[in-house]
Amino acid sequence: MYPKCLNKIIDSFKDLPGIGEKTAERLAFALINFNEEKLTSFADAIVDVRDKLSHCHVCGNITDNDVCNICSDKSRDGKIVFVVEKAKDISLFEKINVYNCKYHVLGGLISPLEGIGPDDININSLLNRIEKENIEELILALKPSIEGETTMQYIKKFFEKTGVKVTRIATGIPMGTDIEYIDSMTLEFALEGRKDI
Amino acid sequence: MYPKCLNKIIDSFKDLPGIGEKTAERLAFALINFNEEKLTSFADAIVDVRDKLSHCHVCGNITDNDVCNICSDKSRDGKIVFVVEKAKDISLFEKINVYNCKYHVLGGLISPLEGIGPDDININSLLNRIEKENIEELILALKPSIEGETTMQYIKKFFEKTGVKVTRIATGIPMGTDIEYIDSMTLEFALEGRKDI
Repeated sequence: MYPKCLNKIIDSFKDLPGIGEKTAERLAFALINFNEEKLTSFADAIVDVRDKLSHCHVCGNITDNDVCNICSDKSRDGKIVFVVEKAKDISLFEKINVYNCKYHVLGGLISPLEGIGPDDININSLLNRIEKENIEELILALKPSIEGETTMQYIKKFFEKTGVKVTRIATGIPMGTDIEYIDSMTLEFALEGRKDI
Repeated sequence: MYPKCLNKIIDSFKDLPGIGEKTAERLAFALINFNEEKLTSFADAIVDVRDKLSHCHVCGNITDNDVCNICSDKSRDGKIVFVVEKAKDISLFEKINVYNCKYHVLGGLISPLEGIGPDDININSLLNRIEKENIEELILALKPSIEGETTMQYIKKFFEKTGVKVTRIATGIPMGTDIEYIDSMTLEFALEGRKDI
């Protein structure tokens, strides 16, 4: 019933996570009211995502160059490398911006159930980096789940001989959360990670 | 920090209603995982929205032709015309699909407060249609708000002399809603519109 291009827009929106039929229709109709310049910018950007974006050869981050702007940033000494699951996670730590660090994107977590082994994620390239770069500490910033724990244990063992320090970010109660809503596994981790005050 | 095209995508998503910074980032990163074909389709559709979509010369619906596919549908006798605020509203009644009807899109509601008068919305063209087409009834399917009521009153007066029947859809309690959550104005309308059972 809608014009063809509108149906295509609705289908495209529906392919995005968390967007159903109704929201897709609402967004598509909102798009109609964009001015020419905004529509051009949106379409061009999507074409650029298709044609220009790839993964950084060093760390696996999203980039429109061979090497991403973090890896090529000379002001970062890169002694600390955050190991993250997804390129998107990098922005979380960049917003904190306290470590003069670099990153390494695994692109997944080890999951025997889903048939994802250590060779399916971006671990071997991290060994290359440790040989070439001046890395002193790997901070594993992976989600505390079965897959995350498995991956962290694997990485710890894998890099044991390199002498690089491997740490993980703390599992515990998030700020502002009432303890009564926290699952017992998180509580156990939080207890284990208790500190003097 | 992100590649330029990703920032442009995030900005475009943020221009859509109900999408903030975080959701825009999440959607943009989801878009990266679209395959080439899907990205092409999305970008092409946005270009088509820019270049091809316009308003139907007859009813004001969104179309990629001079006249929309509902107005040019010979199987509709068009004795009943639904008067709606937005092109998007048409789809709601098309989904019910009980009336062999046509539509007329006002493109807004009369709102003295916002300086929107009768000449700012698509009412005069409806008079042309009544003169040319075989219209017997206008069903006003506008939202029951101050602007909606004002517009409905205006349209009723405006078309009084044409002899066309002007009706409005019922205001009342939506299906499945508990009466205790209904405002008193809606309750008044629902009482006024009571029917024998």
